[in-house]
Amino acid sequence: MGRLTSRRDVVKLTEAGVTNRRDSLAVEEPLEIRAGGRQFAVTMRTPGSDIELVQGFLLTEGIIGNREDIRTIRYCDGVDDEGLNTYNVVDIDFAARIDLDAPNLQRNLYVSSSCGVCGKASLDAVRATSRFAPENDWTISAGVLASMPPKLRGAQRIFASTGGLHAAGLFTFDGELLAIREDVGRHNAVDKVLGWALEQGRLPLRRTALLVSGRASFELVQKATMAAVPCLAAVSAPSSLAADLAEESQMTLVGFLRGNEMNIYTHAGHVVRP
Amino acid sequence: MGRLTSRRDVVKLTEAGVTNRRDSLAVEEPLEIRAGGRQFAVTMRTPGSDIELVQGFLLTEGIIGNREDIRTIRYCDGVDDEGLNTYNVVDIDFAARIDLDAPNLQRNLYVSSSCGVCGKASLDAVRATSRFAPENDWTISAGVLASMPPKLRGAQRIFASTGGLHAAGLFTFDGELLAIREDVGRHNAVDKVLGWALEQGRLPLRRTALLVSGRASFELVQKATMAAVPCLAAVSAPSSLAADLAEESQMTLVGFLRGNEMNIYTHAGHVVRP
Repeated sequence: MGRLTSRRDVVKLTEAGVTNRRDSLAVEEPLEIRAGGRQFAVTMRTPGSDIELVQGFLLTEGIIGNREDIRTIRYCDGVDDEGLNTYNVVDIDFAARIDLDAPNLQRNLYVSSSCGVCGKASLDAVRATSRFAPENDWTISAGVLASMPPKLRGAQRIFASTGGLHAAGLFTFDGELLAIREDVGRHNAVDKVLGWALEQGRLPLRRTALLVSGRASFELVQKATMAAVPCLAAVSAPSSLAADLAEESQMTLVGFLRGNEMNIYTHAGHVVRP
Repeated sequence: MGRLTSRRDVVKLTEAGVTNRRDSLAVEEPLEIRAGGRQFAVTMRTPGSDIELVQGFLLTEGIIGNREDIRTIRYCDGVDDEGLNTYNVVDIDFAARIDLDAPNLQRNLYVSSSCGVCGKASLDAVRATSRFAPENDWTISAGVLASMPPKLRGAQRIFASTGGLHAAGLFTFDGELLAIREDVGRHNAVDKVLGWALEQGRLPLRRTALLVSGRASFELVQKATMAAVPCLAAVSAPSSLAADLAEESQMTLVGFLRGNEMNIYTHAGHVVRP
């Protein structure tokens, strides 16, 4: 609780050269919401203000209208494998009977059964399993990575007119843009690009880099893993759980890719400089 | 299909004065995914590349591994109340039996039963109903709105260190910041602020403005409506459906709130200039 940032080693490429440093990432962890001991929603969130989060979620989903609709709300008192309370599960006791089978109560729902949802357990709980093994004998040049954001922006048809869309682009290791898709939802833009690749019979996506506008969340790394994308790059910051999953999935995760500079959060050895 | 942008009247406030113009918004509409005629997921997306979107979603959720796992995939051929196919429902016929009761297949799931999910019908299908009536006899000064983004940024504790968090802040009509919350998910930051307001017994949220970093989607307007927030402001662009719902909910929706300039998309009469 209150784990808002997480420190992590990062390889920073700048015009001046390569530096290794510690960097702060915004923490992303699953929060499981239970009523009467039964799970009915899981959301990926930054820890802190969790009781407010659950109350606001219940309010905005139309389940409660005021504080009095909740008798008690508290962290689950169970522990994880290491005997620690993860503060990632909240138990609610409603004042009146609520129909939790209503299908509009599900948001970003993942399977989970243990009370201690964190670390390794949380990754197992929230991720699907890829059918494709990661590949290891590849390199991409830093110059190719740096060339990708301008190509993505140049190809974005709708953003220019609305300023309102996320984009995802799939590139070869030579920097050729294979496909770009735009959407109000970043996860949808990624799904569209990966759906295109599936349609084209290109899975698993060996020797390609996926670039997303904005930030890299756990969900995007999860999606890239499912298509065996070896390198995910984002224009802005990744979350802590995005870096954790990329580390474990043997994926090279690049963030803050701007101009000729970038931060490499995981498996930096695949990125080569001239 | 292919409705990527939507034109809308907007009131633009600049240093030079007030202008009325037409502006392009990124289109956001629900896409319902059905298997064997049964709904199993609804996602809010920008129309276009819908078949790719569904295939990518099925791939990244671990449901399919290649094209051959799908026998047929096509738009539902039903029509809406006006006799038009909305191209907002996709039917899949899997090559093998798939267990769609697995709970990890639900994402942004909303109730829907008709085949024509669009316009008024889609709003009804995806929104919860607020317990609070909107208020109409209020005004907020443009100067107060313009003062909000710097206050929000000044109060953001985590963004400065990670560059990776969204923020939501609740302000009085005098420009006082009542509460700010940060999260990797914009919807969570809003839920936290509204959960705080519920905890404080402040609902319905009369005479307050909610400011969000980044863009305004349907989901955020929906959440603000549920707490009776009269004015929602975003630093970046709103989506088409966000403006549609704000219009109908009698909410003033402000976008591109930067410096002393802003776009007012709905109910602009509540914003007064000195």
